[in-house]
Amino acid sequence: MLSLWLLMLPCLSLVPPVPAEKGLEFPRYDGKDRVLDINDKNYKKAMKKHSMLCLFYHEPIPESKELQKQHQMTELVLELAAQVMEEKDIGFGMVDSHKDAKVSKKLGLEEEGSVYVFKADRVIEFDGLLSANTLVEFLLDLLEEPVEVIGNAAELRAFDRMEEDIRLIGYFKNEDSEHYEAFKEAAEQFQPYIKFFATFEKSVAKELTLKMNEVDFYEPFMEEPVTIPGKPHSEEELVEFIIEHRRPTLRKLRAEDMFETWEDDIEGIHIVAFAEEEDPDGFEFLEILKEVARDNTHLPELSIVWIDPDDFPLLIPYWEKTFKVDLFRPQIGVVNVTDADSVWMEMEDEEDLPTAQELEDWIEDVLSGKVNTEDDDDEDDDDDEDDEEENQSLIIINNTGRGN
Amino acid sequence: MLSLWLLMLPCLSLVPPVPAEKGLEFPRYDGKDRVLDINDKNYKKAMKKHSMLCLFYHEPIPESKELQKQHQMTELVLELAAQVMEEKDIGFGMVDSHKDAKVSKKLGLEEEGSVYVFKADRVIEFDGLLSANTLVEFLLDLLEEPVEVIGNAAELRAFDRMEEDIRLIGYFKNEDSEHYEAFKEAAEQFQPYIKFFATFEKSVAKELTLKMNEVDFYEPFMEEPVTIPGKPHSEEELVEFIIEHRRPTLRKLRAEDMFETWEDDIEGIHIVAFAEEEDPDGFEFLEILKEVARDNTHLPELSIVWIDPDDFPLLIPYWEKTFKVDLFRPQIGVVNVTDADSVWMEMEDEEDLPTAQELEDWIEDVLSGKVNTEDDDDEDDDDDEDDEEENQSLIIINNTGRGN
Repeated sequence: MLSLWLLMLPCLSLVPPVPAEKGLEFPRYDGKDRVLDINDKNYKKAMKKHSMLCLFYHEPIPESKELQKQHQMTELVLELAAQVMEEKDIGFGMVDSHKDAKVSKKLGLEEEGSVYVFKADRVIEFDGLLSANTLVEFLLDLLEEPVEVIGNAAELRAFDRMEEDIRLIGYFKNEDSEHYEAFKEAAEQFQPYIKFFATFEKSVAKELTLKMNEVDFYEPFMEEPVTIPGKPHSEEELVEFIIEHRRPTLRKLRAEDMFETWEDDIEGIHIVAFAEEEDPDGFEFLEILKEVARDNTHLPELSIVWIDPDDFPLLIPYWEKTFKVDLFRPQIGVVNVTDADSVWMEMEDEEDLPTAQELEDWIEDVLSGKVNTEDDDDEDDDDDEDDEEENQSLIIINNTGRGN
Repeated sequence: MLSLWLLMLPCLSLVPPVPAEKGLEFPRYDGKDRVLDINDKNYKKAMKKHSMLCLFYHEPIPESKELQKQHQMTELVLELAAQVMEEKDIGFGMVDSHKDAKVSKKLGLEEEGSVYVFKADRVIEFDGLLSANTLVEFLLDLLEEPVEVIGNAAELRAFDRMEEDIRLIGYFKNEDSEHYEAFKEAAEQFQPYIKFFATFEKSVAKELTLKMNEVDFYEPFMEEPVTIPGKPHSEEELVEFIIEHRRPTLRKLRAEDMFETWEDDIEGIHIVAFAEEEDPDGFEFLEILKEVARDNTHLPELSIVWIDPDDFPLLIPYWEKTFKVDLFRPQIGVVNVTDADSVWMEMEDEEDLPTAQELEDWIEDVLSGKVNTEDDDDEDDDDDEDDEEENQSLIIINNTGRGN
């Protein structure tokens, strides 16, 4: 392991001022090496020693100085996370995909750049934003119980508000129920990405119209849940149902699995909606978007990624430049994930939001291929070969008011 | 300015993996120096050149190597923010409180460690978390219009949901109204900390029971607004009212002004409530807390800081250690901001939440001084002198079930 003390950066993700008041002191990296260089000899011991072990699986350390510095920054993010999580008994390590090919194969590490968390007999992949903040929050979530128990009406209100998340809720006799046990086992397989709730209270179950041993599956932003058929369920049945229904019609981009979500494109594209929930126009647009998603949740090939720009301030100027859109107002478009080429629905200004019907028509045109990121390429790229036929079709599309 | 290229850290607040897909590329510091070393000679030109200028006001660069590194990290945070915000025409600089005493006095810089933003003829102090994320989000907020116009019922729903923020809404004839102009001028003085809304629609005004030129002031978490007396209002009247009513009974700790909030203690203490809104127990506790705050908003000396631990994952282990509390469940306590000494309300477990009445009684005991951070010091600090009288009072307090 490199001696990180040399760099001695006191803090990575932030630089807190030193306030006269006490109580808000952000941790600074203390310079102690905690992240292990994992190899064939030490991995078993490391697993045994900690309640959870996080392994960053990386490509071989590159020749280029710049990329080396970036690798060191990753190490420092991990060191800070390791320092902060030391009291929670969480260990950290790095695995080189080339040098440690043998042990990575044994451990089933596959995607370079991901963090794999080993907890008891489970492996959880973290393919999100590798900041100390996001990683620590993710790990703390993993330390919680896999199933939250809803005991009264106030807690049920909390459950009702979580429309952004995929969540399941089951009604069971009590904590000793074998069906609750199966539910808990299934929950562990999706923690912390999918939220599991249970109730043992008749009044709560009645409110949810849940029968004994029944489990409801809530897709994000849908008003009504789907009752998982064939109760009571084994762990396997629950897992199978979730995997099948995992990709929602509308999902919010989250730091903790943003790259995983982005990789889950459909035929190389994403329908992306930008809307700031805190902004009245953004909120109104989201309401329309949810309505359209609800009306079209039967379409298996429809999956819209909603991005709240507020969650990713550093990316806003980059997105505005790459996609040529103004993110101070709502936008919806199609993004090609291979080259980030994109096409956006026309809205005159922020007062000119589409109706649900207009949005639905536009989405239909995207799904049928009428609206796509290729037709306007001549317009965008001046150095493209001039192709009259394509220009022709572009004009037709513009005349009919579709595309941009 | 130091050559930051030497350090060449490609990214500060996060280390993104390099995905095969395009569209989520986080900016990395490109090594170009953009942050100016502000002095008596160049500050006017810098102000003229940019639509907004952010100046980090810092104490002299310290002798200690560790503190120097920390200073360099601050520079790098500013450089990354400057790079990201370059296209928005925002300039950055640093002002040394000793070396540049003359110019800092001219510019009215006072608090070391704060960032001062110069926008037209206004100066806005940023005393929040100095991370690139938080700073960039803050600056983007400053680029928005100071008043958001609410034009319909959907937008009004967005307004209704913002219970965490101090916000004002006024009903005016149209954009040319002189009273709307005064409202806008007042808004600029509090942007982005306090949110200003206006409507020109009779239907929206009716829903809010607003008369023409009337302005309502919403304290966070209160159900009913206060109508600012004496309409129509001049800019000065609005500003005066807001300053007088600015400290709410219950406020949420936010990254963008966390240190400012913390400095705003009452006689050296804060009543602090930890509750995770996403957690059913946390949500239930918050509901109780809001009820108590609403019932006691007439008490001028009552100001509770609500911290959602989810917003500050890196601080969770630090807080748990400093305050000796378990933050996986709701907590409420009194924190002395001088030494971070604290005392917490007793709750058996997360199912044992206090009733509103119990919480109110406890808060009353805090305000009267019966519950305080000093009485239990003998228990905490073994090396304290043994003081029988204090121990005596401690026992009495414990017997009556107050304190911890």
